[in-house]
Amino acid sequence: MEALHTYFGLHRPAIEDHIQSVLGELDPLIVPVASHVLGAGGKRLRPILCVLTAEAFGYRDKEVYPLATALELLHSATLIHDDILDGAALRRGQPSAHLAFGVQETVLAGDALLAMANKCIAGYGQPELMRIASEAIMATANGEIMEIAQLREPRLSEEDYFQIITGKTAVLIQASCECGAVLAGAKGPQRQAAQDLGRNLGIAFQLVDDALDYTSAVEDSGKPIGGDLREGKLTLPLLFYLKSLPQEEAERVLAAIKHGTLDEVEQSAIITAIGQAHLAEATREVAAGYLEQARKALQFFPAGPCQTLLGSILEYVQYRNT
Amino acid sequence: MEALHTYFGLHRPAIEDHIQSVLGELDPLIVPVASHVLGAGGKRLRPILCVLTAEAFGYRDKEVYPLATALELLHSATLIHDDILDGAALRRGQPSAHLAFGVQETVLAGDALLAMANKCIAGYGQPELMRIASEAIMATANGEIMEIAQLREPRLSEEDYFQIITGKTAVLIQASCECGAVLAGAKGPQRQAAQDLGRNLGIAFQLVDDALDYTSAVEDSGKPIGGDLREGKLTLPLLFYLKSLPQEEAERVLAAIKHGTLDEVEQSAIITAIGQAHLAEATREVAAGYLEQARKALQFFPAGPCQTLLGSILEYVQYRNT
Repeated sequence: MEALHTYFGLHRPAIEDHIQSVLGELDPLIVPVASHVLGAGGKRLRPILCVLTAEAFGYRDKEVYPLATALELLHSATLIHDDILDGAALRRGQPSAHLAFGVQETVLAGDALLAMANKCIAGYGQPELMRIASEAIMATANGEIMEIAQLREPRLSEEDYFQIITGKTAVLIQASCECGAVLAGAKGPQRQAAQDLGRNLGIAFQLVDDALDYTSAVEDSGKPIGGDLREGKLTLPLLFYLKSLPQEEAERVLAAIKHGTLDEVEQSAIITAIGQAHLAEATREVAAGYLEQARKALQFFPAGPCQTLLGSILEYVQYRNT
Repeated sequence: MEALHTYFGLHRPAIEDHIQSVLGELDPLIVPVASHVLGAGGKRLRPILCVLTAEAFGYRDKEVYPLATALELLHSATLIHDDILDGAALRRGQPSAHLAFGVQETVLAGDALLAMANKCIAGYGQPELMRIASEAIMATANGEIMEIAQLREPRLSEEDYFQIITGKTAVLIQASCECGAVLAGAKGPQRQAAQDLGRNLGIAFQLVDDALDYTSAVEDSGKPIGGDLREGKLTLPLLFYLKSLPQEEAERVLAAIKHGTLDEVEQSAIITAIGQAHLAEATREVAAGYLEQARKALQFFPAGPCQTLLGSILEYVQYRNT
């Protein structure tokens, strides 16, 4: 994990510089919204995965940074629009964008970051990079759409849940690894390995996120505990809980979630029950299965320090507490 | 103009088919919003310009249709987000999307159409097409941003106005012509001619739109007369009017527009004054100058029926009443 910190420390300044220069190109009207999300101390997981995958396949040029940054821009654009969509009041411990800055600035800031990311990726002149990015944007939008549909017509389906998290989170993380690999000229099974690594890592990342929502207090995660339940999101810990109830009771709770009629007391009771039944831990175990798949994909990477560092990222995702 | 109708009739079915198949791929949640805008009897100006420019430079394959359709998708995506931005109550005679369908669906429908357009254009494997499209998306977002900034801090500047309409309208029309030309393999001065044609045509198109806003009743344009004034938009007819006033009076009206304190009576008086001073007509004359530039660019196109048809489109833009 120490080596991973060193690697982050080595590449992060270049990524932050690129982010700052992107912010510098934006119209003053949307700079506050954009820097609120882009400058808010994000993990920069997607850029680092891109840099690390590229280097794993032998690419060591600083030309990787704009591409890596573009992936963070895409991520930020979806976060910004996502804030409008789910009305989340806190994002990384700060009030979410559309509450602080207004809907107009928020829609436009998302659109502008998306456009800048596209423009940057188009600048590489490699159609494959564009294809990967545009499919990721499409999948992210579809994931968000499914999530909204699920909020309105909640169903007790793990399949729906996995489709949602794959779309809204995993495909862009997959794209980050795949873009790095493609930039490095990886083909066939190696490119496939980068895809598989990213997709499984992405699913696990979101699973752990959803587990943390039921275990981590606001000072750690920047979000209120049980926020997903309050927003009516059926994540895996809650699905596990509902499956443990008698069918009639599960349907009553589901209906209450749908109609937003769960009161504070019942919400707290559910959050407590999920804690006592260790359903967040059960969710982490599911994540561990995906990380195992990711580890298998990693075996197809060239042996070396980057392969080891990517392994450390898998470990970090498994045990992270924020 | 008869030949232009025939040409539209020849190519429109393929474009409408592609639009329908795009709608068929969307999630049911956003189909109503998307088809509300995409199916609302738009002029399909951008797709036709793409097809016509491609053919003018010798390209006659049906592979042009997905590209042409993608340009309509980009246009629709910006219309959809634009509806949120300016809160317009009527669009093409129908209530605007976010009022009829909710903000969530509207944000997502715009994002999804943008993503589909990108994905489609990336599918051509030609980096230049991606570059043109992503720069157009960026310029459109910047145009919208400038327009919002101008709504909040209105300034009597024609320069600002031309920057706004170039960004929000002309660059995507320019991209439609340029994409057609690039698909056909046009280079150097020919590609430049396609760009110049599109940009000047686009500026003229918006100028005429802004003139129509002060002359055309709701049954013709689908929008209430003087809607731009009511929304606080400083378009050219209004800028001409304000320039005709004593400076102190102009500043008073400008402040009232900014603070939304112009009452119905004063709004009607301004609309009437603009009519009596023929300022919509004066705006059309400015448009005529841009169309003249477009005609000059058209001289660099290969002689033939497509060149003639593009000339008819310039004429149509000049004299259109809806």
